[in-house]
Amino acid sequence: MVITGKDNPKVKYLASLHKSSVSRSEGVVFIEGVRLCSDAVLSGAEVITVVKSESFKDETGTFDGLATDPIILSDNLFKKTASTVNPQGIALVVKRPSYDSGIPFRGDGKDIYAVLEDVQDPGNLGTIIRTADAFDFTAVLISDLSADAYSEKTLRASMGSVWHVPVIRLPMSEIISFLDSKMITKLAMHLKGESLDREEISLPCAYFIGNEGKGLSLDTSAKCDKLVRIDMPGKAESLNAAASSAIIGYVLSGKRH
Amino acid sequence: MVITGKDNPKVKYLASLHKSSVSRSEGVVFIEGVRLCSDAVLSGAEVITVVKSESFKDETGTFDGLATDPIILSDNLFKKTASTVNPQGIALVVKRPSYDSGIPFRGDGKDIYAVLEDVQDPGNLGTIIRTADAFDFTAVLISDLSADAYSEKTLRASMGSVWHVPVIRLPMSEIISFLDSKMITKLAMHLKGESLDREEISLPCAYFIGNEGKGLSLDTSAKCDKLVRIDMPGKAESLNAAASSAIIGYVLSGKRH
Repeated sequence: MVITGKDNPKVKYLASLHKSSVSRSEGVVFIEGVRLCSDAVLSGAEVITVVKSESFKDETGTFDGLATDPIILSDNLFKKTASTVNPQGIALVVKRPSYDSGIPFRGDGKDIYAVLEDVQDPGNLGTIIRTADAFDFTAVLISDLSADAYSEKTLRASMGSVWHVPVIRLPMSEIISFLDSKMITKLAMHLKGESLDREEISLPCAYFIGNEGKGLSLDTSAKCDKLVRIDMPGKAESLNAAASSAIIGYVLSGKRH
Repeated sequence: MVITGKDNPKVKYLASLHKSSVSRSEGVVFIEGVRLCSDAVLSGAEVITVVKSESFKDETGTFDGLATDPIILSDNLFKKTASTVNPQGIALVVKRPSYDSGIPFRGDGKDIYAVLEDVQDPGNLGTIIRTADAFDFTAVLISDLSADAYSEKTLRASMGSVWHVPVIRLPMSEIISFLDSKMITKLAMHLKGESLDREEISLPCAYFIGNEGKGLSLDTSAKCDKLVRIDMPGKAESLNAAASSAIIGYVLSGKRH
């Protein structure tokens, strides 16, 4: 049955999920468009609801095989329900991964974590998650005030990696307690740190990256075992957060061999 | 004198500069807002015109000392002339740096170049320019179809670095001819390349990064001396272009010691 009325309770529910606060408390994400939806399906995300426009054609067959009955909206209503300007006729409600059993820990001496303090730019967050996935980090741990890992921009930048690598939002104090309890080296990326020396770094390790404007807070820096900086002989005062993260991630990943 | 009419020829000229094609052919950039304008001034960009709204207050004094007479627009007209949604009352027309004498070359055996083939995302381009500045590359060389290095998003991501490091747009064939003429190693970042081995890399070097979706073209890859890839033990199929650029830039910069 094709739904045409915007007062339909299902449609109202879908529209309410555009608010990050609602989608978080519901434990779901409402994602739109062929690329983001395919990323989620192909990466094994748990699909709760498929939403299609009446005229949507699933050319790749990605969405046909899903177990749930799709909600079909008239093209006009789909346009009104979607947040994108030119919706492609496909959207999904997907379960946010929950990590109820706590922060993952492999314990093979090779754990790597990225810890992000109030990283605000969703593009940076998504790119860092993608890098964490590429280098097989154990998890990305983000502080309370960081950007939403499941916002559209973050999803786009993560290229599906947000469905592969655990991204866990916690108060910084809990993140640090966990790392201390597992004897994981806490490395602060800091402009006033010592020059990064790959010989002196060992795993397991968590590297800390601060807010784009303010860098890592004094409080968090003080709790780290070591402050390091990436040598920059040029004029730029600092590197982009995702660029720093890629470099330290690469160096740490190389320590596994 | 405060200009209030949108038919004023100066205002018409300023508005025309929002088009990238116009601003390129004029050899200038029209930039708006305190941060981007401060970046440009503090980085020594050549300011042609200062544009202020009637009520703009230059709290830091950054724009008062500039030699040119400012154009003052009524607040209402400033809003209409600016492309940003909430303009801050300050804009500049700045000269695009020209590199008429050709691609810079230091010749000290430590030259590093980033070569970008059709990189489309302005955030990636700006971040790569910022990294190039941090690691003191000789220049960033971009192919014809790459994003504009002076668009608002690129400027924002470059954090002023676009005014420090030469960014030169040329046909790929000319870029390769130049590198060959100077005997600079051409390193292609390629998913099918050999594993990146820092011991085997030497300067001077230019690394090539391809388009976000398509990667480096067959044609360009074939002209490079070597194809290398960054080892990714995880699930992500590739790294973001700016993340790859940061890693290879860091590795090459370390070869200078």
